[in-house]
Amino acid sequence: MKERITVVKIGGALLEDDSLLDEISRAFASMEGMRILVHGGGKRASEVSRALGIEPNLRGGRRITDAKTLEVVTMVYGGWANKTLVARLQSMGCNAIGLSGADADLIRAVKRPVRDIDFGYVGDVGRVAVKTLISLLQAGLTPVFCALTHDGKGQLLNTNADTIAAEIARALSGEYRTRLLYCFDKNGVLRDLNDPDSTIPRMDRSTFRELQEEGIIAAGMMPKLHNAFQALEGGVEEVRIGQVGILTGMSNSATKLTL
Amino acid sequence: MKERITVVKIGGALLEDDSLLDEISRAFASMEGMRILVHGGGKRASEVSRALGIEPNLRGGRRITDAKTLEVVTMVYGGWANKTLVARLQSMGCNAIGLSGADADLIRAVKRPVRDIDFGYVGDVGRVAVKTLISLLQAGLTPVFCALTHDGKGQLLNTNADTIAAEIARALSGEYRTRLLYCFDKNGVLRDLNDPDSTIPRMDRSTFRELQEEGIIAAGMMPKLHNAFQALEGGVEEVRIGQVGILTGMSNSATKLTL
Repeated sequence: MKERITVVKIGGALLEDDSLLDEISRAFASMEGMRILVHGGGKRASEVSRALGIEPNLRGGRRITDAKTLEVVTMVYGGWANKTLVARLQSMGCNAIGLSGADADLIRAVKRPVRDIDFGYVGDVGRVAVKTLISLLQAGLTPVFCALTHDGKGQLLNTNADTIAAEIARALSGEYRTRLLYCFDKNGVLRDLNDPDSTIPRMDRSTFRELQEEGIIAAGMMPKLHNAFQALEGGVEEVRIGQVGILTGMSNSATKLTL
Repeated sequence: MKERITVVKIGGALLEDDSLLDEISRAFASMEGMRILVHGGGKRASEVSRALGIEPNLRGGRRITDAKTLEVVTMVYGGWANKTLVARLQSMGCNAIGLSGADADLIRAVKRPVRDIDFGYVGDVGRVAVKTLISLLQAGLTPVFCALTHDGKGQLLNTNADTIAAEIARALSGEYRTRLLYCFDKNGVLRDLNDPDSTIPRMDRSTFRELQEEGIIAAGMMPKLHNAFQALEGGVEEVRIGQVGILTGMSNSATKLTL
């Protein structure tokens, strides 16, 4: 029987409130078995960007990343968010190690080709170095990934954290029974954005298609759901989307995705 | 016969010039045997600090680190400087992994007690987790440390990079034949700051004391030299101070310290 591993993605907004950060860190630290954390930091990146006189430029939730913006996200994701989380987890007995995709060459990406939009220094995941990642896990370390990758030629790239989580889960699913948990500030995928209790409890590919056609799923959820279904198709056993309670199994309301 | 390891400290000013960064990364990547890089980033930290409206506050070359300044150095040291170096080294075939002292609990520090000056969130190194560090080295990884540590209770601390390099070298000297190289923008310890060719080629404790009494050694060099002699006393075999050429043994002019 394969061992189990859980990949948890937490949204950047959760890092901004110290009591929320504490709650999430505590929930993550108390989870059993091997686990990996992936975090965003977009909210703070936009704040720091503005403070430095660079107006953030987002298209469909994706950040256009020029050279100056890449410096900002490298500082915020790789520095502030990552090290704050690692120090917090360490204080709770979780032997966390903060990583970008450049560290130990863990995640290589390809700079997104320019089509309608030039996203700048944005990378699409090419490959995850599974062996290296497993060796860190086997050494008893808990990887904490920020949303940065590299191209192997010296260029850092800004990469969506939802995608990184899904790609890591997929890459590990050959070796482990893999769960992927998307943890954010809502109860799950909602039928009505104005009703926090309108969680869709289960969704498979065909329900997803139907809801999409009815225009029920919010635009902001689309990339997350696409990533999630790709992860399931790639061998991930289970994907859940919801509040921090999903980490400890204490949350009744969350969206569970199946193929 | 013990294996050899080299700990290299590079100054933050060297990271600001892309061709210098390239030269140093190339020299470091081409070195033989196990090695560890420790970097500063103070120059950029002061720039980002000012851009964010926080006037840097330095006393005797040490940064007074209030909560806002800690956020800045966490962004600059742990994010920008560390990940830029790691991505560059990866492109040169060096399997670098970026680390702060919080990552894998590698370096614990104690917040400096308030005496004449309250340095704020500044930490003095308590212990280096030698076993964990060795396991990373044995996995074929090349650690790249930024100047951040933690107290184990969730608090990140700003810690002088010269000291981190010396403490790491000292901690490893039981296991390896350890060299410590301080690489900066001068030829070595100078007799006359205005004469780049006035390098003092060798210095032991007693020469150091004499030169100090004569007022020949610049104030800025004092902490580096104190760290260096402590490292030698702690079992480090060799300490050199000079330009990038000392990494590859190509530099004739450098200061070699002995006990």
